[in-house]
Amino acid sequence: MKLTDEQFLADFAEMSVCGATPGGGVDRQAATPEDHKTRAWFSGWLARHGFTESVDAIGNQFGMCELLPGRPWVLVGSHLDSQPLAGRYDGAYGVLAGAYAATRVLDQITDQTLNPQFNVAVVNWFNEEGSRFAPSLMGSSVFTGKLPLEKALATRDHVGVTVAEALGGGTVAHGPAPTLSEVAHYAEIHIEQGRVLEDSGINIGLVDRTWAASKYRVRVVGSQSHTGSTRMEDRQDALYGASLIITAVRELTEEFEPGRLHSSVSELYVLPNSPVTVAREVTMNVDLRSPDEAVLARAVEMLAVRVAECEARSRTRVLVEPTHSWGLLAYPPAGVALARSAARELGLSYTEVMTVAGHDSTNLKDVVPTVMLFVPSVAGISHNEMELTRDGDALRGVRLLTEVLGRLVSGNPA
Amino acid sequence: MKLTDEQFLADFAEMSVCGATPGGGVDRQAATPEDHKTRAWFSGWLARHGFTESVDAIGNQFGMCELLPGRPWVLVGSHLDSQPLAGRYDGAYGVLAGAYAATRVLDQITDQTLNPQFNVAVVNWFNEEGSRFAPSLMGSSVFTGKLPLEKALATRDHVGVTVAEALGGGTVAHGPAPTLSEVAHYAEIHIEQGRVLEDSGINIGLVDRTWAASKYRVRVVGSQSHTGSTRMEDRQDALYGASLIITAVRELTEEFEPGRLHSSVSELYVLPNSPVTVAREVTMNVDLRSPDEAVLARAVEMLAVRVAECEARSRTRVLVEPTHSWGLLAYPPAGVALARSAARELGLSYTEVMTVAGHDSTNLKDVVPTVMLFVPSVAGISHNEMELTRDGDALRGVRLLTEVLGRLVSGNPA
Repeated sequence: MKLTDEQFLADFAEMSVCGATPGGGVDRQAATPEDHKTRAWFSGWLARHGFTESVDAIGNQFGMCELLPGRPWVLVGSHLDSQPLAGRYDGAYGVLAGAYAATRVLDQITDQTLNPQFNVAVVNWFNEEGSRFAPSLMGSSVFTGKLPLEKALATRDHVGVTVAEALGGGTVAHGPAPTLSEVAHYAEIHIEQGRVLEDSGINIGLVDRTWAASKYRVRVVGSQSHTGSTRMEDRQDALYGASLIITAVRELTEEFEPGRLHSSVSELYVLPNSPVTVAREVTMNVDLRSPDEAVLARAVEMLAVRVAECEARSRTRVLVEPTHSWGLLAYPPAGVALARSAARELGLSYTEVMTVAGHDSTNLKDVVPTVMLFVPSVAGISHNEMELTRDGDALRGVRLLTEVLGRLVSGNPA
Repeated sequence: MKLTDEQFLADFAEMSVCGATPGGGVDRQAATPEDHKTRAWFSGWLARHGFTESVDAIGNQFGMCELLPGRPWVLVGSHLDSQPLAGRYDGAYGVLAGAYAATRVLDQITDQTLNPQFNVAVVNWFNEEGSRFAPSLMGSSVFTGKLPLEKALATRDHVGVTVAEALGGGTVAHGPAPTLSEVAHYAEIHIEQGRVLEDSGINIGLVDRTWAASKYRVRVVGSQSHTGSTRMEDRQDALYGASLIITAVRELTEEFEPGRLHSSVSELYVLPNSPVTVAREVTMNVDLRSPDEAVLARAVEMLAVRVAECEARSRTRVLVEPTHSWGLLAYPPAGVALARSAARELGLSYTEVMTVAGHDSTNLKDVVPTVMLFVPSVAGISHNEMELTRDGDALRGVRLLTEVLGRLVSGNPA
């Protein structure tokens, strides 16, 4: 019996019970019980629909259908983990859409309307979000050789638990998971997490580039003292210094046209964090992103000047360590062309879009022919329980992903 | 054998090993193993010097010497707990100075040069600092009836441990501890934690008043979203809002003459505190203090206006809850006069000073005739491992406290 659109929506609702929050979202940080519950649900789904499950050493979960033993694989998927108190769609939509697309392509093969040149596997990449274990995109980074497995497994969360421990202490891997050299193509669909599609009423985004980004870890070093009795002119208040920097990071965006620079500070730790002791140290992240490398370079320069001002004004010492940066990276034009052709065939409206957020496809595209698709997000709301993609948009995305996957599997991208 | 000044310095050094930090300070937050170790050390000291130890239900530790059964007590002491990574003097100096003063007064009684009218007890008040368990001044607040015992015992630290549990689950109390109605006088000596004495070269501060203070808990409520993809104009960033407020709180002090207003924000929690999710909520403290009630009232008014501006600018909602405030409170003039007379007799230089910091004597003075003394702190450094009171200043303080205690115990304050 073929899977219907109604069944997709019902499966998505059932999956969304895993780690559900009272506010209507999910909380499934990587390798928490809620993430494990979601993985177990997906494992059951794969078994019921004829896929063979395998999991690699970093916890990437594959639903495999080996049609042509020894031939390369086409992977399709996204991630099931989430931010804390997050929405139901980010990542999870793409995994289930991938599973439905794969099933429908397999139906076409069974019906002999599609002649496969490759094997097919659905994938749930481990720890895309990076909120519990940094960095983000962990599973796809290990898979693509950008992050050593041992380093990833040794990563600790804020209470000292390692990835290896949280994944079950070496028991997670099983089955013959595909490796990078065995992958011919990768396809992923995701909610936009922005407003371009929503505001323009367009069905589908064809992701052609990633915004440039520069990320930093900032340490503000002050000196502990008594909050009451220390003279104001004697203070070296790390939290005051950090606040000046957070404000400067935000206001940097006002120096450019709207939409040219995004900035944020969202993670911050205070020492000793006592009500009567001036902070001796604050550690925080700083994140700058732009669709224009020249804007980003200018912002980075301006930030350095402003940090020095904040340092002087707060009498603190500020240490800025770059942690991650990337330029304006293109997705493979052939993949964009394939997606465009597929969308046109299905009569869907589409536009090329850039992604501001990172995705597992950001890793895959550098090493494997990759297609990345977006569906609209209402009001662009993301990393929030209110995140929503309308059913019609979600189902249109599954249809397009099925068409794209079919072309990739048949080796007929035109 | 009478205790010498050298023995005081040796005992202080030995006590300072309890909870010692590599930076030369101590870390003995209330009812941690380090605090328990210090209490045990003090318990041994009391036993070796002829005091009978008793501990009340909130963990106040008394070294008692009952000279006149049934007569009221003169208490002398301070606290042994500390802030995280704190100095060795804050509180601990006052407890050991109190113990030495009591021992020397008892020697005078033995020598029949002093005729006691009251009993004598040294006290280590539990949890003066309030960094692990809020509020501060916990032990003296329970003792003076300002805080219900049950509420104090049920207070939890940030990992959920209660005061009752940390104190040993009901096993802490033993012996006949004195109660408030049995106390005739209280005396305390403390390091200044300010620069008045140090800058003027004066030996002793006679504490005559407490600065006025207004303390708040502030919640900044924003909305979670993606740090990368959310348009800047759509953000409701709670950490940005908090930073604007922290900056405003600090800059409020610049509206007044130096030393007229102290302000701080030093404890802050971010939700969800993830590198890629705009903060939905920040909770923090705000502390305003002044030696002038009119200045404080004006600052409170100005703060309300500025918070509203920060709220609008960050598109967040800010909830300000007053948690504690007090006016310009006087210490009993008779106690100040007694201390002045004693200092003059010993040939020590002195001046009346206000205390910006709270002390256990702040509680005691409202219900019992109280004397509060300060010795100089180098550069006013406090709540910092570098905190230092020079040996000569520390020993002068013990001499004065002995003279003050002797006058109180003999019922001859003149």
